[in-house]
Amino acid sequence: MSIRYLTAKIAQQIDEELMNATGAFSLDQLMELAGLACAQTLAKVYSKEKFPRVLVCCGPGNQGGDGLVAARHLGMFGYEPTIYMPKPGSKDIYKRLQTQCANMQIPTIPPSNDIEPLRTALRSTDVILDAIFGFSFQPPIRTPFDAVLPLLDESKLPIVSVDIPSGWNVEKGNDLGVGLNPDVLISLTAPKEGVRKFKGRHFLGGRFVPKEMEEKYQLNLPQYPGFDQIVELPSESSQKL
Amino acid sequence: MSIRYLTAKIAQQIDEELMNATGAFSLDQLMELAGLACAQTLAKVYSKEKFPRVLVCCGPGNQGGDGLVAARHLGMFGYEPTIYMPKPGSKDIYKRLQTQCANMQIPTIPPSNDIEPLRTALRSTDVILDAIFGFSFQPPIRTPFDAVLPLLDESKLPIVSVDIPSGWNVEKGNDLGVGLNPDVLISLTAPKEGVRKFKGRHFLGGRFVPKEMEEKYQLNLPQYPGFDQIVELPSESSQKL
Repeated sequence: MSIRYLTAKIAQQIDEELMNATGAFSLDQLMELAGLACAQTLAKVYSKEKFPRVLVCCGPGNQGGDGLVAARHLGMFGYEPTIYMPKPGSKDIYKRLQTQCANMQIPTIPPSNDIEPLRTALRSTDVILDAIFGFSFQPPIRTPFDAVLPLLDESKLPIVSVDIPSGWNVEKGNDLGVGLNPDVLISLTAPKEGVRKFKGRHFLGGRFVPKEMEEKYQLNLPQYPGFDQIVELPSESSQKL
Repeated sequence: MSIRYLTAKIAQQIDEELMNATGAFSLDQLMELAGLACAQTLAKVYSKEKFPRVLVCCGPGNQGGDGLVAARHLGMFGYEPTIYMPKPGSKDIYKRLQTQCANMQIPTIPPSNDIEPLRTALRSTDVILDAIFGFSFQPPIRTPFDAVLPLLDESKLPIVSVDIPSGWNVEKGNDLGVGLNPDVLISLTAPKEGVRKFKGRHFLGGRFVPKEMEEKYQLNLPQYPGFDQIVELPSESSQKL
């Protein structure tokens, strides 16, 4: 049985069930484990010796929250992260996560629609963590992200995307061609329909799905090695064999 | 510079600072990372092949919460944990953590002052995770724990203690001789004064202390390897060399 790729609707449903009274998880818990998995994936592929400067690009939603948690852990691992979050979300949790990063002396580029500061930051970046849009993204891409995505893409820097590459349709992939082209993808909980044909290195994180839920949704998750929080999925080409 | 061993007062102060408006961490976050570190420590020393059945013994406070998080992660790692929590704490978070474990089909021995069920459980246990008392423990040991600790000790099963072995004085160690004698210890944030002479394998977890706080309290924490959440400390004997 191969792993299940989720539609937006099922992904949303699983998220809700994890956090309702039955699932009993708090957003703080899930975000902490998700963000840790993102940081570990980046660290697994891009060493801090060769790629110390990480630009963590965060959107205004929960995806951005995962990015903030990842930024903090990357700081703990010895990287030099910088946060780019042009439209900070209003939820209290994002503010707390930002404070935690500030306490780690992780700089944040001041929020703005002007993309010049991003252009400047990219010149001193070794790798990008893309935590801009998640599985609830709907086009059109709003300002300033309509200018941000092409800039990240043109930078030719390596990109690690969280859950779904920003600008991609959760189910149809990069059908409009406006999305990022990441080198590495870290799917959370289970991969989404849209990344079925993703060609880069693909990891899975979010080792918190109870067996019962996994069976209910027939997720067929792979076995995580030992006590790791991430597992690498076979590449698209090897799946075909 | 060697690592700092904390007094109860300093340990309490650091905990408070992590969670006040300046530190900005939620209990959910810290407990998640602490419990994960506990589970990983147990998994590092006792393989699930040889030691699948873990009895996770939880006290009524935050230490017990760490235990519940660890039990869930151990379930995720493929162990067969059982929870023994004779006096469940009343905080909402403990209830949520217990529900998360129940969703993982992790059994809990029904709360009671009767220690017979514990005696029975120990007969089908391979390793004990001791998350009963933490750094705010003050003697005397109350019922049923006054009977629980000797029973755990007499079982001769391997014991992994969280932060401070249960029954030990946070600063003076096992001075009254009523505490457990664990084989492995996982200190959280920084080790406590009382475990200075601990002879077993000693790990540190809680990779969330911002550099500024580490310096303020002169913690001299060791470097965690790579993106691990635990680090093994040199044994007491090797520190003397």
